[in-house]
Amino acid sequence: MNATLHSEVQALYARYARAVDDARFEDWLALFDTDCAYYVIPRENAQRGLELPIVRCRTRDMLTDRIVSLQQANIYNIHTDRHMLSNVTVCEGESGTVLAEADFVVYQTDVEGQSRLFGVGRYRTRLVRRDGRLFIREQTAILDTAAVPTLMATPI
Amino acid sequence: MNATLHSEVQALYARYARAVDDARFEDWLALFDTDCAYYVIPRENAQRGLELPIVRCRTRDMLTDRIVSLQQANIYNIHTDRHMLSNVTVCEGESGTVLAEADFVVYQTDVEGQSRLFGVGRYRTRLVRRDGRLFIREQTAILDTAAVPTLMATPI
Amino acid sequence: MNATLHSEVQALYARYARAVDDARFEDWLALFDTDCAYYVIPRENAQRGLELPIVRCRTRDMLTDRIVSLQQANIYNIHTDRHMLSNVTVCEGESGTVLAEADFVVYQTDVEGQSRLFGVGRYRTRLVRRDGRLFIREQTAILDTAAVPTLMATPI
Repeated sequence: MNATLHSEVQALYARYARAVDDARFEDWLALFDTDCAYYVIPRENAQRGLELPIVRCRTRDMLTDRIVSLQQANIYNIHTDRHMLSNVTVCEGESGTVLAEADFVVYQTDVEGQSRLFGVGRYRTRLVRRDGRLFIREQTAILDTAAVPTLMATPI
Repeated sequence: MNATLHSEVQALYARYARAVDDARFEDWLALFDTDCAYYVIPRENAQRGLELPIVRCRTRDMLTDRIVSLQQANIYNIHTDRHMLSNVTVCEGESGTVLAEADFVVYQTDVEGQSRLFGVGRYRTRLVRRDGRLFIREQTAILDTAAVPTLMATPI
Repeated sequence: MNATLHSEVQALYARYARAVDDARFEDWLALFDTDCAYYVIPRENAQRGLELPIVRCRTRDMLTDRIVSLQQANIYNIHTDRHMLSNVTVCEGESGTVLAEADFVVYQTDVEGQSRLFGVGRYRTRLVRRDGRLFIREQTAILDTAAVPTLMATPI
C-alpha cells in the first residue's frame, strides 16, 4: 500500500465533502477533471450491471449546468448537508489512473435545525494525475438508500 | 505511534466492513486467524465485567457454521449493511499481538431502499501477525444499541 | 501536507471522542491547554458571524466547573454518547499553533439501549504544542443540528 497516495486521496475526499457541505459548488466542481463524469446509481442497479442512474452527468458541461441550475433556478427543500466518509481504499490502475472507494453517510439538516439521515452508500472514484495533482475523472455514488427521502438537489 | 501499523489496521478494518457490506462472508471469515473468537456483547455487560454476549463464537468452526447457516438456512429480514468506522486506535501488546479499537455505526437498508440506523458501538480487536499479515484473533463488538431493532443476522 | 502532524491530530480527536464516550471527563479535560476555551455554536450563527453560542466556556475553570456539575449536580437524561469523526484536515497557523477541522456525528443511547442521532456538525480546533505534545487551545463545535433534541449535558 502506498501511504502517501492514500493520504492524498483521503484529503481529496475531505475537500469534496467540505465543498458540498459548505455549498461551495464551484470548489466542488474544481475537483473534477476537464474530462469527467458524475453518476448516482442505486446499489441494486450497480450490482446487476443495469446502468440506469438517478443522476447522469457525462461531461463537465452537464455537471456545470447542474450546479448553475441548483444555484439560480431550482426550487427545493432548503437544507445543509453533512458528509461522513469511512473505509477509504485506494489502488493504482492502468496508465496513471487511481481507483478509490469510500463509504459515505449523508445527513441533511433543515431550516428548523432538525437533522435526518439522508442516505448511505459507497463512492467509486476514478482519479487522474495532472500537473502533480489528483482530479476526479469519474465519480459514481452507489446509493443503498434508493428510496431517496426528498429531492436530490445538492450533490452526493 | 507506529504509522505503518496504524495504516495496516485501518486497511484491515476497511476490508472487514466491505466484506460484510458486500455479503462476501467467506472473505470476511478469511480475515480471522485459524484460532479465533467473535463476540457481540452489550456495552452494559462489558462495563460490568458480566460476560453474557448476544453472540459467542469461540472457535473458527462456530464462526463458519454461523456463516453457512446465514447463507443456506436462516430466514431473516433481507437487507444490506453499511458499516462506518472511526477513531481507530492501535497499540502493540505482548508477544506480537496487536490491540486495536474502532467506533462503528451500522446502517441497514431494506428491499424498499429505506435506510435506518441499526446500531452503534465499539470494536475491541486482538490481532496476530502470521506470514507477515495481520489476522483477527478475537473480535468483540461492544454494542451501545442493546435494544437491537431487528434480528441480528449478518455480522456486525 | 505533513502526514505526521495529520496522524497526531487524528489521534488526539480519537482520544477526545473516546474520553467523552467513556464518560472519562477528566481525561477529556486533560486534552485542553491550561489557557483554553470551549464553544458550541449553531451553524447559522457561525456563518453570519453572530457569536451567540449555546455553550461558552472561556477559561479552563469554567470548563472544569461544567464537568464537576455534570458529575455531581446536574439532573439529565442518562445516556451514553458515541462520537464518529470524519474528514480531518490540518493546517499550521502562526507561531506554532495548529488549526484542525473534523466533521462529527453524535449518537446517544438511552438506558433502554435505544440509539438515536443526537446531532451533526464540524469541529474547528486550535491546538498548541507544549512539551512536545498537542493541547487544545480552543474547541468550537459548530452544530448543524441547532434544534438540539434533548438537554446538552455531556460535551460534544
